[in-house]
Amino acid sequence: MHGTVIRAPFDVRFEEVERPQIDEPTDAIVRLTATCVCGSDLWTYRGINAIDPPVHMGHEYVGIVEGVGSAVRTVAPGQFVIGSFFASDNTCEICLAGYQTGCVHRAPVRGAQAEYLRVPLADGTLVATPEVPDDEIVPDLLTASDVLGTGWFGASAAEAGPGKTVVVVGDGAVGLLAVLASAQLGAERIIVMSRHEQRQKLAVEFGATDIVSERGDDGVAAVKELTRGLGAHSVIEAVGTQESMTQAIDSTRPGDHVGFVGVAHGVEIPGDQLFYKLVHLHGGPAPVRRFLPELITRITNREINPGKVFDLELPLSEVAQGYAAMDERRAIKTLLRP
Amino acid sequence: MHGTVIRAPFDVRFEEVERPQIDEPTDAIVRLTATCVCGSDLWTYRGINAIDPPVHMGHEYVGIVEGVGSAVRTVAPGQFVIGSFFASDNTCEICLAGYQTGCVHRAPVRGAQAEYLRVPLADGTLVATPEVPDDEIVPDLLTASDVLGTGWFGASAAEAGPGKTVVVVGDGAVGLLAVLASAQLGAERIIVMSRHEQRQKLAVEFGATDIVSERGDDGVAAVKELTRGLGAHSVIEAVGTQESMTQAIDSTRPGDHVGFVGVAHGVEIPGDQLFYKLVHLHGGPAPVRRFLPELITRITNREINPGKVFDLELPLSEVAQGYAAMDERRAIKTLLRP
Repeated sequence: MHGTVIRAPFDVRFEEVERPQIDEPTDAIVRLTATCVCGSDLWTYRGINAIDPPVHMGHEYVGIVEGVGSAVRTVAPGQFVIGSFFASDNTCEICLAGYQTGCVHRAPVRGAQAEYLRVPLADGTLVATPEVPDDEIVPDLLTASDVLGTGWFGASAAEAGPGKTVVVVGDGAVGLLAVLASAQLGAERIIVMSRHEQRQKLAVEFGATDIVSERGDDGVAAVKELTRGLGAHSVIEAVGTQESMTQAIDSTRPGDHVGFVGVAHGVEIPGDQLFYKLVHLHGGPAPVRRFLPELITRITNREINPGKVFDLELPLSEVAQGYAAMDERRAIKTLLRP
Repeated sequence: MHGTVIRAPFDVRFEEVERPQIDEPTDAIVRLTATCVCGSDLWTYRGINAIDPPVHMGHEYVGIVEGVGSAVRTVAPGQFVIGSFFASDNTCEICLAGYQTGCVHRAPVRGAQAEYLRVPLADGTLVATPEVPDDEIVPDLLTASDVLGTGWFGASAAEAGPGKTVVVVGDGAVGLLAVLASAQLGAERIIVMSRHEQRQKLAVEFGATDIVSERGDDGVAAVKELTRGLGAHSVIEAVGTQESMTQAIDSTRPGDHVGFVGVAHGVEIPGDQLFYKLVHLHGGPAPVRRFLPELITRITNREINPGKVFDLELPLSEVAQGYAAMDERRAIKTLLRP
């Protein structure tokens, strides 16, 4: 079969790779219906994450179960499934507390930008839809695999909800879906930090009430001005840089909540500054599995359209163009069809 | 009158200072019944905090109201009062949310190691006891002014409670009172990190169930061994160094809570490490005012004896000896009587 491999910075290839097999009795093999490029894939694409070639790319997926190991009980061949980018047993204490990305048996899912994918711990990782869904909601369901679940976790970690003023730092797909999540969770006011017209429009469509285009200290000052000098109740950091983390912490009112879901790169949080901010800081790799059943229901009920973040669709064989378009910010997020 | 002044590292003087006056209509003047030396005072004593002499020391206090400004309504001359080390209006949105140390009008209280003290925003800062208390519980009440309230905030920020395993990093007075707070809040198991026999004994008296004497990675390993490899639910950081903060974060199970109340000095939290820990991090200068009414009730009902952290009592005039004893770890905490 063919899959996506990065061999050096900016060198994405769609090449012959080994077709995955069932290695463990708890594995499932999924024939992919759709996959996509993640903002976090760009860290590797740009060589900021070290590359030990070949790096098999992709961790967002929906598809049809092709086969399962002998121990798998909850999914069966022919079912349409969605899974998280971390495999989890969903039975350990950490999973039961809703932190499947901290599962004692967690394993990364890799190589999803391909025709077939091996998913470890299939019973704990995959959720089947009641029936094979209409093609038109496949992009929506695909977002639940990572980017929607991550935005949702950010909003949840920031305790977005009724009566709250939310700030979203970052207008990538995760940031935009954090806007959608905050609106769904009932937030009163949602301020998105964005300077891109197309992304601003989508943010407003998803529920943003205010747009701030300034960054850094100016961005913080603009948020303070919108919140009577106090800062926001719930701030979602969806970038992963020093500037975005500082901006998020500084935009939060004392005693309130920062949810950070941007994969941190080179971020250092000065303890003394954090001390005097009095904020709650919570984040990390989103335990998407916690939210999957609810997100699938909202999507199949047509309550939300998170798939709108895909503004470029390509055949999987043209994956390299999908990376380039996102790297150059010509696309928010690229959907790939095998 | 006389008060405590630091003029250079290790140079503590009890000298003639100006007697405080009512400067604002919201001020109160308190004649101090007792005061004490704080672990955080040692950062100045040791010259780690820059000294711009003269530095008027002391921020923990109980005493009798001597006079009040024309706008003060809730306390009156003759009443016995306890206040926080940060003055707060206790009416702004931040105060009403329980974060009085983030009050929009907050002001530090300084110069409490003296005979008289000016307390700004007296209505929002001071809490009067129902009657002038017996002398024997004055040390207990004094702890509520900072060290007990800070330990309580640490336990609260770490979400200590029924069914929880708590770790306390630090066996100073705040750490020991975080043990007491965790026990009062119903924690199932309380592990204290300590290598000092006298402090271990007091920790056990306050409710500790386990003692770990290892530090750093060995300390983390010992906590993991006591928690089936998962880490603790609620970890309270009560030191303020890089080592203690790292130890606290690493001892926490994924998805669970670190409460940090040690005044951070030179601490840098690497964002990428924090990301993958999946913990909640919350702390800062304790909003003691939030807890004062409840703590006063528990003390006057003789439910708790936090004053046991005072293992040295001196006349205020011998304050320099009190600093030296704490600096050399000969005393946990020094009580001073004017």
